[in-house]
Amino acid sequence: MTRRILLEVAYDGTAYHGYAFQEGADTIEGRLNQAISELEGRPAAVIGASRTDAGVHAHKNLAVFDTEHRMEAGSFRPALNVRLPEDIRIRASREVRPGFHPRKVRTEKTYVYRILNTGEKDPMQRLYALYVAYPLDEARMQEGAGYLLGEHDFRSFCSAHTQAQTTVREITGIRVERAGEEIRITVRGLGFLYNMVRIITGTLLEVGRGAMEPSRVGEILAACDRTLAGPTVPPQGLVLEDIRILDYSNNA
Amino acid sequence: MTRRILLEVAYDGTAYHGYAFQEGADTIEGRLNQAISELEGRPAAVIGASRTDAGVHAHKNLAVFDTEHRMEAGSFRPALNVRLPEDIRIRASREVRPGFHPRKVRTEKTYVYRILNTGEKDPMQRLYALYVAYPLDEARMQEGAGYLLGEHDFRSFCSAHTQAQTTVREITGIRVERAGEEIRITVRGLGFLYNMVRIITGTLLEVGRGAMEPSRVGEILAACDRTLAGPTVPPQGLVLEDIRILDYSNNA
Repeated sequence: MTRRILLEVAYDGTAYHGYAFQEGADTIEGRLNQAISELEGRPAAVIGASRTDAGVHAHKNLAVFDTEHRMEAGSFRPALNVRLPEDIRIRASREVRPGFHPRKVRTEKTYVYRILNTGEKDPMQRLYALYVAYPLDEARMQEGAGYLLGEHDFRSFCSAHTQAQTTVREITGIRVERAGEEIRITVRGLGFLYNMVRIITGTLLEVGRGAMEPSRVGEILAACDRTLAGPTVPPQGLVLEDIRILDYSNNA
Repeated sequence: MTRRILLEVAYDGTAYHGYAFQEGADTIEGRLNQAISELEGRPAAVIGASRTDAGVHAHKNLAVFDTEHRMEAGSFRPALNVRLPEDIRIRASREVRPGFHPRKVRTEKTYVYRILNTGEKDPMQRLYALYVAYPLDEARMQEGAGYLLGEHDFRSFCSAHTQAQTTVREITGIRVERAGEEIRITVRGLGFLYNMVRIITGTLLEVGRGAMEPSRVGEILAACDRTLAGPTVPPQGLVLEDIRILDYSNNA
């Protein structure tokens, strides 16, 4: 009997050319396929929820695959972890209904972008945060972020390379918090465009350093023009923190 | 005029065969020598304060070198940082008296060992913490740690490979703190033996999991026998956090 298994996957994206499988490149998906193939003794191809870019990390991404194996669904976690490198970890495995597709169900994703607001670089953080030496006002950043809450056309905050059919998305939560030198931007939403969190972060940095008024974020949003928003910040500060499945049917 | 320059050095030890120069191996000291050589146009050999092991990190280690350069002492920091890889950073550079030797002055060092007390491994932390899946009681660990405070013969907590003339050292502070899943052991002292913090940590883990009574730490200390203490824990959880110079004359 064929079962579909859902994996919760965490990874350090540093060493990989992103999540999505590419022939001849080391990717998270490629490593998952390889581990499952070894376990099953036949080729495997997972379907992932979020195709994170090179250098982006995840505390929880999702992937599914089909199996004829009789082992308990929860046992795929340890069985795959021994076949995966240390920088990719399966956090949980469970059975889902046949045909469950992690990009076709309704989900809420949470991304965190970490900024270290200091001129002094800590080598231990270089792969997991962006260093910003100029002073940042996190209250201004939060004020600017407020304009993005809700359902909007986010064309201004989307890479020109997008293949999305619509650029309307819904942000359900956005928070800018400081703890000492660390600023965290947490963005929750029902869908994200290509580079959206990194362009939002680049724009909020402009607001935080005083080069842009908070209300300008609302104007940029309304203009639907990528050239008005801030730059796309580098990948290493970004973590896909969580994916919550809101509805298990494929109707997203 | 020859001046002696003191560098404060931070590094991610992951990619290196330890701090100390070794012919044919990639080391922190080798990289510092190379950067200074490039800048000065002649061979260089720094003298370091602490020869941390492979995989051990530092937020502040010290190194000195002599220069004929006329640049301001503080400018060696940026001049060397552009010649160093991203995982080694000079945090500060300043002039010290001629002959100042960072291993011959009285210093107080602070080490931090980070433990993640959870069965779920976070790939982003794997190079900066030890994972311990069994429950740990940090109050018991703190109680055991208390026996180590002060001046003692630490032979029981020293690698058999030591070349030290005496195994008497003084611990000036030792703290075991938990924040959620993270346990941090902070050890301050006027000198450390080879692997001392990692053997202390290995012993406190035995206490924390209930395999050893806290008072047993005092008995092990008194016995001066390495075989009684716990194992040497892996290097990646250890950070040389600080070195404070207590006396700038070479009389340590």
